[in-house]
Amino acid sequence: MILINTGNGKGKTTASVGLAIRAIGQGFVVAFGQFMKRPDQAGEQEVLHTLLGARFHAKGKGFLTREEQFPSHRAVSEELIAWAMEQMQDVDMLVLDEALYALQSKLLQEDELRNLIALSRQRDNHLVLSGRGCPDWLRDEADLVTEMTEIKHPYKAGIPAQKGIEF
Amino acid sequence: MILINTGNGKGKTTASVGLAIRAIGQGFVVAFGQFMKRPDQAGEQEVLHTLLGARFHAKGKGFLTREEQFPSHRAVSEELIAWAMEQMQDVDMLVLDEALYALQSKLLQEDELRNLIALSRQRDNHLVLSGRGCPDWLRDEADLVTEMTEIKHPYKAGIPAQKGIEF
Repeated sequence: MILINTGNGKGKTTASVGLAIRAIGQGFVVAFGQFMKRPDQAGEQEVLHTLLGARFHAKGKGFLTREEQFPSHRAVSEELIAWAMEQMQDVDMLVLDEALYALQSKLLQEDELRNLIALSRQRDNHLVLSGRGCPDWLRDEADLVTEMTEIKHPYKAGIPAQKGIEF
Repeated sequence: MILINTGNGKGKTTASVGLAIRAIGQGFVVAFGQFMKRPDQAGEQEVLHTLLGARFHAKGKGFLTREEQFPSHRAVSEELIAWAMEQMQDVDMLVLDEALYALQSKLLQEDELRNLIALSRQRDNHLVLSGRGCPDWLRDEADLVTEMTEIKHPYKAGIPAQKGIEF
């Protein structure tokens, strides 16, 4: 199946991590890759790296904020895409966290993602994609799309990003 | 903080698992309890049990479907609530999965949950609650409420619950 966690709320990455943990617990072969995110940026990276070894891949360079950064960001994305195509050959589940961010910023091209999806269909395994801004074609292509929406509390706002919660 | 994952879509439990994994990776002391869910029902239970030992608690009896089941379901919930109150003393994060289901079905009483919240505020740690149907008072009380909404695909519907995905 093709599963997507999208929306502007929290829970996209953590739900993807939880799906990976669930699948690991069921004895599935799982691979987990992250676009954009730097290594050792978030708590889940250490646990996933311990559990998955080389089947965990996070070598991103953060958000793409200036045009001149594109080539170096694209280079690490290409590495991740090559790794993902390879993992796809023998995993039961491949998670690509922030794939939708990468797609939006052209670090992951539509035809590359379509290839991954086609391969996943062919192998009848699970491909989990997360990130903001799911394009229509991908929503149509997917089996399950979940939207995470943040219900705001203006009077409790202003709490900064916290270790162990946001990263 | 009090964090809530609610809504009718997927991702409530998996996002809560992901938050626990993130916090574990940051070196936090984490406890994870589940209302309703039977032991060994879902893949994440094995991994959480391995990572958390006695700080993982899942001894539920499934959905409450008949009134005469209430006493035995309430008994295991009381055990879980006592365990949670104890964990609350020294954890950085306590996750209570399906707490909102338990609240709705009176297996967890409002005053019991208010006690847990008050204790969490006092200790300045994190309490993560998940489940369908967040009551207004709890939404008001929480710092962060995320709603998971399933965007359906009628033409791709009819796929049964799958191991490693739904459990």
